[in-house]
This record gives sequence, structure tokens and C-alpha cells, in this order.
Amino acid sequence: MRKVEVFMEEKGIAIGDYIEVVEKEDNRMITHKGIVMPPYELSKGETLTIKLDNGYNIGVLIDQIFEVRILEKAKPREEISFKEVLPKKPELPNVTIIGTGGTIASKIDYKTGAVHAAFTAEELAKAVPEIFEIANITPKLLFNIMSEDMKPEYWKKIAYEVAKALNSGEDGVIIGHGTDTMGYSSAALSFMLRNLGKPVIFVGSQRSSDRPSSDAAMNLICSTRMAVEDFGEVAVVMHGETGDTYCLAHRGTKVRKMHTSRRDAFRSINDVPIARIWSNGKVEYLRDDYRKRSENEVWVDDKIEEKVALIKVYPGITGEIIEFLVDKGYRGIVIEGTGLGHTPNDMIPSIKRATEEGIVVCMTSQCLYGRTNLNVYSTGRKLLKAKVIPCEDMLPETAYVKLMWVLGHTQDLEEVRRMMLTNYSGEITPYTRFDTYLR
Amino acid sequence: MRKVEVFMEEKGIAIGDYIEVVEKEDNRMITHKGIVMPPYELSKGETLTIKLDNGYNIGVLIDQIFEVRILEKAKPREEISFKEVLPKKPELPNVTIIGTGGTIASKIDYKTGAVHAAFTAEELAKAVPEIFEIANITPKLLFNIMSEDMKPEYWKKIAYEVAKALNSGEDGVIIGHGTDTMGYSSAALSFMLRNLGKPVIFVGSQRSSDRPSSDAAMNLICSTRMAVEDFGEVAVVMHGETGDTYCLAHRGTKVRKMHTSRRDAFRSINDVPIARIWSNGKVEYLRDDYRKRSENEVWVDDKIEEKVALIKVYPGITGEIIEFLVDKGYRGIVIEGTGLGHTPNDMIPSIKRATEEGIVVCMTSQCLYGRTNLNVYSTGRKLLKAKVIPCEDMLPETAYVKLMWVLGHTQDLEEVRRMMLTNYSGEITPYTRFDTYLR
Repeated sequence: MRKVEVFMEEKGIAIGDYIEVVEKEDNRMITHKGIVMPPYELSKGETLTIKLDNGYNIGVLIDQIFEVRILEKAKPREEISFKEVLPKKPELPNVTIIGTGGTIASKIDYKTGAVHAAFTAEELAKAVPEIFEIANITPKLLFNIMSEDMKPEYWKKIAYEVAKALNSGEDGVIIGHGTDTMGYSSAALSFMLRNLGKPVIFVGSQRSSDRPSSDAAMNLICSTRMAVEDFGEVAVVMHGETGDTYCLAHRGTKVRKMHTSRRDAFRSINDVPIARIWSNGKVEYLRDDYRKRSENEVWVDDKIEEKVALIKVYPGITGEIIEFLVDKGYRGIVIEGTGLGHTPNDMIPSIKRATEEGIVVCMTSQCLYGRTNLNVYSTGRKLLKAKVIPCEDMLPETAYVKLMWVLGHTQDLEEVRRMMLTNYSGEITPYTRFDTYLR
Repeated sequence: MRKVEVFMEEKGIAIGDYIEVVEKEDNRMITHKGIVMPPYELSKGETLTIKLDNGYNIGVLIDQIFEVRILEKAKPREEISFKEVLPKKPELPNVTIIGTGGTIASKIDYKTGAVHAAFTAEELAKAVPEIFEIANITPKLLFNIMSEDMKPEYWKKIAYEVAKALNSGEDGVIIGHGTDTMGYSSAALSFMLRNLGKPVIFVGSQRSSDRPSSDAAMNLICSTRMAVEDFGEVAVVMHGETGDTYCLAHRGTKVRKMHTSRRDAFRSINDVPIARIWSNGKVEYLRDDYRKRSENEVWVDDKIEEKVALIKVYPGITGEIIEFLVDKGYRGIVIEGTGLGHTPNDMIPSIKRATEEGIVVCMTSQCLYGRTNLNVYSTGRKLLKAKVIPCEDMLPETAYVKLMWVLGHTQDLEEVRRMMLTNYSGEITPYTRFDTYLR
């Protein structure tokens, strides 16, 4: 137990209690009043964090606490359905928020200190009242899983839920999603939602909403703004930098989580984000080649082949992993090759065996940035001869999702190749802009 | 065939010919003289590139060529050993360049347009005379393979060659290496070369030296400068930005190829580069916690366990890949997890089986930037219970190489854990600096 936990136990203080703390600094005594916040789980645990009446959080060093008094014990969370509280305003657009779990819908388990998926979409919406001034919000908790457990079958469920909402008159849909696999899900919906004409916005948070540094509220506000825009694609809306200045809307097929913990972890790779959503509400488009809003009826094309694998190559890898996948009945393999899209030459016979047996093998690059090109070096040419499909500048994760979707439609190699190289949802940029590297 | 190739064939022009071209631009006629360069393989092929007498390359639009004359046909490459030409200067430090292959030592096969590993270290050194003003250069062609074919057994050979050179009085060693897997090899040598007190510099090039935009010469010059510095670690020296302003020296365990084709593809991840080497020759250190030069006798600790795999997780992956590796007798598995270091909960039983059977499982993040933390979410805690070792902020590629090396020394899980979490060669940063993200 850390110092803060020992202190709280000794003093009988619980998270949520309204307290008065007298801090002794040198010879001065300073008094603070506020609500006790959960100790930040990565800290050394030497401070007590309280939310002051003005909403600001401060940390007080345990060693400097002279006196502490509990003014009011924490109350159990109110359980009012927020639908009763907030009637629809006819002048506002209508947005459905679909909850699927993740940190944006999570709270800290005060007993263990770990974060569990727990908030319902209702609770979440209640916590961010600003969004009700932008749109009439219909929350819907579809499921509640952390995103590391996301699976292709859930992508389908989300896609149908989105289509149902949009085709019944909603102006936009927001999907609350864990950040770990959000890029995979946004790619999946980009392919599955055909004839889309309204915004479908994925949003998550890197810090749970219980935490002082949470990005949940601003991300949700910016998503709601994007969800009512003149825009008709799947996008991910997350913090654009570590401060609260703006969020970015990234195209669903070109976005990747590039940092384990920063609030600006999500980045467009090989592409320019679609828009910047400033904290003052202004939406600034960063490009003009995006699909505008339309009254299209969206339909779900969810035919996918789940027997697809994503393999990263490295010095020392052998062909046996490819042989294993062939033997296990996989229908497609996406390789994260080195550089322009290479594997050790030793692996090529196994790859050839795979393609000869009708298994599709696609090539992407573990560099992430840049474009595959199998014409430059002799290894690349041998891979082309082995019928490997180089996936232009597609992200490995997007190529994986796309290959599942393509193989759901055809198993004919030439047709698979044609579809993999057809740009369905902005997954391929025709040429790579110089200013899209490491931004 | 592209326009430039048709044009060259029609006119009987070969790469290397010395020609005179009359260009018609509006009503002006401009005459250029120079050597014909290979057409840039990614261009539209509408220009003829020639190297002028002043060394500068220009492209002339085929459509604007009014007249062309061959002044001198290309001569076969001279085959003088450059050792005869360049006697040692006693006042200069001594640097050995070990050639292993890759683009920096490659030339274009003019028949197919593909690039083959072909230059010897001698030829390469001849092409960059500037390095002979910095040091006495001893070139040594160890082998000649493209780096996608690099293997752990080759790391050992390189390590012994480096140790031999340094312990026989060389002041520094440069290793010419293909860029695809250079980060893996630099990590491997960082662990294998113990008690190192002199610079060991990996260098490569993203564009072969036949190409107008080649980075080979400047990278080699900057590597040579770094190889004679007051520095005693393994580093990678490559372009720091796309222009020819400076190179960066990256710590061997913290560097990654982040772009398929840009000259500034190599980046320090979660860390600050060691130094900037300006094109005017100045070496500017960007940190002060690097090892300085010493007269230590380096020794090679090359005990490694090759039965280690690197696995990336994604939605839809199952535990069967882990089961396969266990059944195949693998001794270690490095997982590239999602976010802070997660796998689908479905995979955890297979991971548990692996660790129960004595196989070490380490966790890194596919985000690349940031640090693993298995204490935040319940999935992480379950992975910790399954005895997974979270690898701090180590790159997945570095963790893979390190686990091979650690398992070469002990198979005892607690000792493996201790060694994986011991910072041997800068592979773990104690805290992550804010300014190391996406630079």
C-alpha cells in the first residue's frame, strides 16, 4: 500500500468524501476544501489529490498534511435515467452514442485501483452536459468490453447498430470504444458501411474520466461536433496534442494508436487528418477530398472471412509459421515485412506454397510510414513472382481488416488482388504527401 | 518501358555514357554535358538524368531534348585495389569499415533495373574520398547479403569482427548494413559487445549510390566522424532530415526504421538521439549520458537462444499461435500487445500454459511509443498473474533480440525477469521524456 492509501485508511477517508485539509508548508498553514479523488495509479502515492470547489485538482503531499477533517461523506451515485431529465430540442440535430466499453466508459475500481469498464453510456453523457447543447443525444449501451477483447463479430454488431440509427433519421453516430484496437474497428466499419452519407465517429479516452487528466470530456464534445458536420465518413476523433486546444478527426482507415498513454496517441499515418476540432467549437477542415453528408441509405456489407492472420517478420523468423497457418486452414495472411516489404529469402518457398494452395498473401511494411514497393530489390521481385500482393501505403492493421472483408466476397486470387488495390474508403493514398511523416 | 528507356534505346545511350544534350525550352537552346545516370525507378520516366561535370545532377525532360550526342561511351569500372592508392597517414585515427551488404553497398543492375548487393567495401570507400581525410580506412567485406536475410548467426560474426578490429588497435568501427533490419542488428551488437569503449557505428543508405538522391556518401562521412569521436557505444548514423544538413547518431537499442523510403527513416523511439553530425563536420551531442571512449578490451558475449518468436496481437487472433510455438519447442515469446501491453483475454490461457511449461513471455506495445504498464487494467493484471514480463519502454524488436540474448545465459524465469528489466545498453529509459514522441 502506498503512503496515500495508508493515510486514507488511517483517517477513514474515502474517494468522493468532501474534506478540509490543512497543509503546513514551512511555517505557513494553508487550508483547502474539496472532494477526494482516486490516487493516480502511476504516481508514487505520496500525495492526496482533491478536486477544489472551483473544479481544479490539486495534490497535497501527505507529509505536509497537518490536519484533515471530513466535512461530508461521499454519497452513492444518483441513478436517474437522464432521458427523463433532458427532453429533445427540435432545433438540434440528433446523434446516437453507441457504447462498446473502453476507458472512455470506465471507472476506477476503488478497491483494487484497477480500471474496469463500468460507466453506461447514460452515465457518461450525464458527465458531459456540453454535448446536449450540440445535439439531442440518444445513448445506447451495445456492449461493455475492453477493446483488447474486440472481435470481428462485434464489428458486425456495431455496424448494424450504426446503420439502424442512421437509417431511422439520426444525423450522426458516435461510437465510444477502447483505444487499444480502435484503429482496427474504425477500419472495419469503413469497409462494412457501404453507401455511407453521415458521420460515424469513433471516440475513446486515454485516461479514465475519474482521473484529473482525463481526455474523455473534450474528446466526446469534439466527437459530437464532428457528428453533426457536413461529413459522411467513418473517422476517429481524439486529442490532437497533449493540451486541451484541439482534437483531430482522422480517416478511419489511416489512423493508428502510436503511444501507450499520451492523450495525443492517435495519428494519421501517410495521410493528413480530415479536420481539426478546436476547443472553441470551430471545425477546421485540413483537406477537401472528404465525402460530404448525404441522405444515402447506408447498408451493411459484413461478409468477412475470419481465417486471416497478421504476421510480422524479423531476423530469425522461419517459414514454419506460414506452413502452420496453411495447415490450419487460414485463407489469407498479411505480412508486416521489413523496409519496402521484404521477408527473409528463406521464407519465400513457404509463401509460394501458401499462394499455390490458394491462400492470399499480402505485403505491408513494419516501418508503418511510406509505401511498399516490391520492384526495387531482388527479394521483392521474388515475392511478386510468388504472387504476393503489395498493399501500397496501407497500414498493416488496415490491410488485415480489409483482407478479411475482401475474402468474404471472393476467393479468386486475381479478384482479391483487384479489390485489395481498389481504394474503397481512403485506405490507399495515390501518392504520399511529404508532410505526413511523424506528425 | 518508360519514355526515358525508349529514348535511350532509340539513341543507343547507355548508363555511364558521357553525352551532350541540347535542350529546347521555349525558344532558347541550352546545352548540358555529363554522365548518364540510371533512371530513378519510381519516377514517371519522362526525364533523362545526367551528372554534370561539377557533380550536380539534373533531369532533362525527354520532350524538350532537341539533340543528343554521345561524346564517350561508358568504360568498364576500374578494378584497382584502393589500398595501393592510399597509404596510411600517421596523424589520423584508424577506422575499419566492415561491409555486410545492403543498399549502401549496392548498385543497380542495369539490365533489370533492380538493385543488387554488389559494391565491395573498397569500391564504396573509393566513391567517398572525404572519409580518407578523417581517418585511415581499412575496408573489409565480411559478407554481402541484403539485410532482410540477416540472421542471428551473422550478428555473431559481425560482433567478432568488430572486437577483433577494436582490440587490435582500431579507433572505431563502421558497419555498412542494409537498412531493413539494421535496428535489429544494432540492438544485437549492443548486447553482445561487452566492455565496449570505442564507437561501433552502423550505417546504411536508403537510396543506392548510383542514384542522384543517394544518401550513401553523406551517411558514410558522418559515420566516419562519429567513429573517431570520444564515444564508446553502438550507434546507428543516418540522415536526420531529408536534406543534406545533418545526420543523427541513434543509440543502437532505441532506433527503428520508421519509413520505407525517406532518407530520414531512422528515428530514436522513446529517447533522444545521442548526437547530431552536421554536414560541416561538427558533432553536436544532444545528451550527456553516453559512454565515453576508453581503452577497454571489448569481448563478445554471443550466447543466444534462437528459439524465440515475436508475435503481434490483433482482434481475432487466437491462442493457437502460442500453442504452436510451445509445441515447436520455442523457449521465449515476445508479444507486441495493444496499448499498454494487452492481449485478448481469450489468449491468456495459452500464455499461462506457455509460462507454466517454462517458456518466457515478454510484453511490449505495438504503439511503439510509450511504456508498457500491466497494472492499469484488469487484462494487464491477469497477464501479470500469468507471469508475463512487461518490458518497460523497450522496442518490440529490441526486446526480441534481448530475450534471445538473455535466454542464452539463463532459463530460470526469475533470473530472466531480472535480466530483462536490467538496463544493459540503454534499452530501457528510466522515464520517458516528453519530447521524444514522433520526432
